[in-house]
Amino acid sequence: MPSVEHVEKHFTANAAVRDIVIAGFAEIAAGSIAMGLGGYLAAKTDNEHYAAELDREYRETVELPEIETEEVAKVFRDYGLSEQQMAPVVSAIVGNQKRWVDFMMRFELGLEAPDPSRAARSAATIAASYIVGGLIPLAPYIAMQGIRPALWVSVGVTLSALFVFGAIKGHYTGVKPWRGGFQTVLVGGLAAAAAFFIARLIG
Amino acid sequence: MPSVEHVEKHFTANAAVRDIVIAGFAEIAAGSIAMGLGGYLAAKTDNEHYAAELDREYRETVELPEIETEEVAKVFRDYGLSEQQMAPVVSAIVGNQKRWVDFMMRFELGLEAPDPSRAARSAATIAASYIVGGLIPLAPYIAMQGIRPALWVSVGVTLSALFVFGAIKGHYTGVKPWRGGFQTVLVGGLAAAAAFFIARLIG
Repeated sequence: MPSVEHVEKHFTANAAVRDIVIAGFAEIAAGSIAMGLGGYLAAKTDNEHYAAELDREYRETVELPEIETEEVAKVFRDYGLSEQQMAPVVSAIVGNQKRWVDFMMRFELGLEAPDPSRAARSAATIAASYIVGGLIPLAPYIAMQGIRPALWVSVGVTLSALFVFGAIKGHYTGVKPWRGGFQTVLVGGLAAAAAFFIARLIG
Repeated sequence: MPSVEHVEKHFTANAAVRDIVIAGFAEIAAGSIAMGLGGYLAAKTDNEHYAAELDREYRETVELPEIETEEVAKVFRDYGLSEQQMAPVVSAIVGNQKRWVDFMMRFELGLEAPDPSRAARSAATIAASYIVGGLIPLAPYIAMQGIRPALWVSVGVTLSALFVFGAIKGHYTGVKPWRGGFQTVLVGGLAAAAAFFIARLIG
């Protein structure tokens, strides 16, 4: 039969595991909503910025056609073309308002037409990634009883997940998988270590 | 003289405030490092991506000059120029390797030369923002004694800070300050409310 002390210890540890799981879920909920909606608003703002600039360029081709024509010419002058060489090109571009505005948007302002469905997709991707990423270190605390064993399993599982994620991301961004994996482990590991030692320091 | 019960309650509450402050500092440390280094690596990856593409374009102008010349011509053909109109422009651009590669980078790939100091600056900005943003809701718990009054001051201070931040951000992104402020309060408020209710639900 377990001693009273043993039972008490057991319940204290379980309460601590429960606190960790609750705090973890709260953090995942807050983070996924804040980051997801933040991404949504950022994409929406990009769309609005593009629409506002497009509007302005349309107005300027009507109200200030000489200045806008000169801006088209400037792009080609910067590429070393003579006035004579660029004349047919410039007049072909400014001969069609849609083409003219499109040219100004891309080559003067460097803006690409945004995909209108990007905002919603971006929000969903960010929120889902936050939830998956948050559940990985939390899962051992949900599945296991002891706080100490769950901590070590959580550290192991999280570092492995960081490595795999970094390697896959590296594959798509042109970074060598091993390097991408180690970079991501380093970032996550440093962040977790800093949190741990600060909590120790003031705890 | 306060009763034993009162003293006990006082110390329990103070221990809870201390736990909140410790958890808050740990979260700020982890978040600022993870987000700052994440931003640094993202900017570094952008730089490397640009350098790799630049290299590839240089090689292609040497190894596949016909294809690359045709790609320059395609940009102008898409703008509705005839072969005759574009001929002098195309030959002016491909006549100088640096100009040629520059044209391909901007107009075919849509890549702008990145600022090499951006990675470090981006990391510092993100980390500093995370620290400032994290200290705002935490400050009342550091300055005040009671957990309940600190909570309400924290909610008030944080919502005000979100409004001011959203309004200032709106000013720079072309969103109306009032709208920007309310949007940001809504995102932060929803995130905090979700965290609170999930913690309640499972707690």
